[in-house]
Amino acid sequence: MSSTPIPASDASFLDVPSDHPFPIQNLPYGIFRPDAQAEPCVGVAIGDHVVDLAALAEAGLFDHDALDADNHPFHADTLNPFMALGRPVWRAARSTVHHLLKSDTATLRDDESLRSRVLHAQDDVTMLLPVEVGDYTDFYSSREHATNIGTMFRGPENALKPNWLHLPVGYHGRASSVVVSGTPIQRPCGQRKPDDDAPPTYGPSQLLDFELEMGFFVGTGNALGTPIQAKDAESHIFGLSLVNDWSARDIQKWEYVPLGPFLGKSFATTVSPWVVPMDALEPFRTDGPEQDPEPLPYLQPNDRANFDIELEVQLQTPEMDAPHTISQTNFNYMYWSMRQQLAHHTVNGCNTRPGDLMASGTISGPTEDSYGSMLELAWRGTKPIQMPDGSERSFLQDGDRVIMRGWAQGNGFRIGLGTTEGVVQPAQPLDA
Amino acid sequence: MSSTPIPASDASFLDVPSDHPFPIQNLPYGIFRPDAQAEPCVGVAIGDHVVDLAALAEAGLFDHDALDADNHPFHADTLNPFMALGRPVWRAARSTVHHLLKSDTATLRDDESLRSRVLHAQDDVTMLLPVEVGDYTDFYSSREHATNIGTMFRGPENALKPNWLHLPVGYHGRASSVVVSGTPIQRPCGQRKPDDDAPPTYGPSQLLDFELEMGFFVGTGNALGTPIQAKDAESHIFGLSLVNDWSARDIQKWEYVPLGPFLGKSFATTVSPWVVPMDALEPFRTDGPEQDPEPLPYLQPNDRANFDIELEVQLQTPEMDAPHTISQTNFNYMYWSMRQQLAHHTVNGCNTRPGDLMASGTISGPTEDSYGSMLELAWRGTKPIQMPDGSERSFLQDGDRVIMRGWAQGNGFRIGLGTTEGVVQPAQPLDA
Repeated sequence: MSSTPIPASDASFLDVPSDHPFPIQNLPYGIFRPDAQAEPCVGVAIGDHVVDLAALAEAGLFDHDALDADNHPFHADTLNPFMALGRPVWRAARSTVHHLLKSDTATLRDDESLRSRVLHAQDDVTMLLPVEVGDYTDFYSSREHATNIGTMFRGPENALKPNWLHLPVGYHGRASSVVVSGTPIQRPCGQRKPDDDAPPTYGPSQLLDFELEMGFFVGTGNALGTPIQAKDAESHIFGLSLVNDWSARDIQKWEYVPLGPFLGKSFATTVSPWVVPMDALEPFRTDGPEQDPEPLPYLQPNDRANFDIELEVQLQTPEMDAPHTISQTNFNYMYWSMRQQLAHHTVNGCNTRPGDLMASGTISGPTEDSYGSMLELAWRGTKPIQMPDGSERSFLQDGDRVIMRGWAQGNGFRIGLGTTEGVVQPAQPLDA
Repeated sequence: MSSTPIPASDASFLDVPSDHPFPIQNLPYGIFRPDAQAEPCVGVAIGDHVVDLAALAEAGLFDHDALDADNHPFHADTLNPFMALGRPVWRAARSTVHHLLKSDTATLRDDESLRSRVLHAQDDVTMLLPVEVGDYTDFYSSREHATNIGTMFRGPENALKPNWLHLPVGYHGRASSVVVSGTPIQRPCGQRKPDDDAPPTYGPSQLLDFELEMGFFVGTGNALGTPIQAKDAESHIFGLSLVNDWSARDIQKWEYVPLGPFLGKSFATTVSPWVVPMDALEPFRTDGPEQDPEPLPYLQPNDRANFDIELEVQLQTPEMDAPHTISQTNFNYMYWSMRQQLAHHTVNGCNTRPGDLMASGTISGPTEDSYGSMLELAWRGTKPIQMPDGSERSFLQDGDRVIMRGWAQGNGFRIGLGTTEGVVQPAQPLDA
């Protein structure tokens, strides 16, 4: 099965503007509920519509044993059954959906009854968490981010820890609290130690932050004891989403030595509802930053393993009518690639499963307006972000809305990652 | 529904010696496969037998709506559906099984046909991983263990980090590699830095260790944003198992700063096949160590929140005919209780789900023969463990078998936690 990208010249019979995130070259997967009574099922975004893959399968339109009407993985409330089927089946499904949506294919275009069963307006459906996340891993793979954090807390000469340039540092995150875009984010309470000379106290986090990340979902996993090698890693990856790894910096700072972040992160992680297939991103491959020292052989090859995906963060305070862009960066800044992350993750024999989420860590670029967290943008509160309504922000306030967007810019089209969005809700402290 | 313990004087019509881990006072749950062709289902251990709860339900012997023949959660390959039903249902099931196994109940005792469907010899069945673990959290709650590790790496004056006495330090572990007792443990490969003055290298871990832990499984979880309070925490806990948190100390040492343990742990975590209900452990409550400073209110009350459970580790080298006990300790040494761990874990609103595993961290006692890891028992290799066959061990060698046991000693009976067992297999390095 070919990995040939869908040509830039292809168009759908559905009208999709050239700056729309979901042209026929994208075809990302999600889980949607057509209406409040209906069962969730697998959908593909095209323009402002969702294609119901379960309905396509029931109409007998998939020409593949694993996808036919009796056997299809699309009547499901997660993408996991489809993800488990592997890349040849993903490509067969993508090829069919592409064919059916093309402007010169009559099957769907000219059959109003079929269209009414298969196509829904995105505005009319509810998007659900697309994947049941077995394990969530968060890496720390942006050199600029790690350097910024290290500089703030340890000074520039010790910014990067000795292991950082040798392996993609990562840690296990909390899978249960991964939520879909739009889920309200309750300000967490917990133990903080704002005064170095006083005991810790309980209360709402005062230093609530976002982290702009990309995440990939494992499609086909590996058995315990059998590593995925770097050269094979991408064939295991189903696709990518945007990730906001919400962080409570005060809780995190007090708890994280020596075992790493825990409650400072586990209250919520937001993912975008659409998972963009690796094949849609193929035209946007690029080389990542030069790696010096040279990584060990198990982390190679790493040529053209990065992806040119523009990213931005917007913030809207309760007083503002529209969001304001506070950061613009790019996924290609990542020092460690997804390929290296997956090879490293499994080099000890650790098994992965369909639906595992591996996030990049905060993505920061080289300039002050390309940092991926408020901690960095406002430099630990010393340079508050100036908002257009005259207010300032060093960390998030109740009612603040955080929106992340990502897209790969093609020639006359863009491959959008969709958005992650969340509004900060007031804390709900326990009674003393 | 009462939490009255099953009286010490009760006996089953099945013969169970007084030092057997599974008397009628215990009744732990597991998942078993009666034979290679059969579907897995829920079982309860009694003496050397397994009671097939699916068969009991099909015989109409459970007098509870949630457990009747049409509706029962026992034809399942995990305990999760049963765990999700909550404590009143757990107690109803336990009460029925207890009644049916009692020496003076004729229902099962005198019905050979029913007995043949319901009772299996443990030797004839295969025990499976009892729970689908959504998230696995590992705490670090033994003061003696944290002090030993801190002393080795930072000296006795800085042994405990500043946060340790204020909160139960913990981190997210890897759920995918939780395996049932008996699963072979392949020595992990990975990146280590044995020589401080040379670059890191790839290869098999040279410092493979075990960690003796207890783990509890969440039964009923909590919604995102709604903490479980300490006073309610135990009603959410389904039961306890033994845990061996296998650790590769060389991989761990090089990777763990600043985000915590990752590949040094994620290659395997072994749990015992039987999950002992909290109600079986009720008679063994005890007060834990005095906590000074006094914990914050959200970590209270903590009276009688510890459990007196004897624990031991045995090691058998390939040259030995029988295992040798190398450590004896007790679960009641834990500084932070399960109640406090669960209250802390959710204080930020983190949700938990049926089947989440929370382990204690290595359990070490105050004496040199009560430490829960080889790192401590052999004090970083400076005091190798002397084995009866004349060999020495500082860390695990290929072929070594590690066995952990636990039991609460009652008056004329013991509540056994069963065993975790694993044999170290040679590494399978990648070709360079």
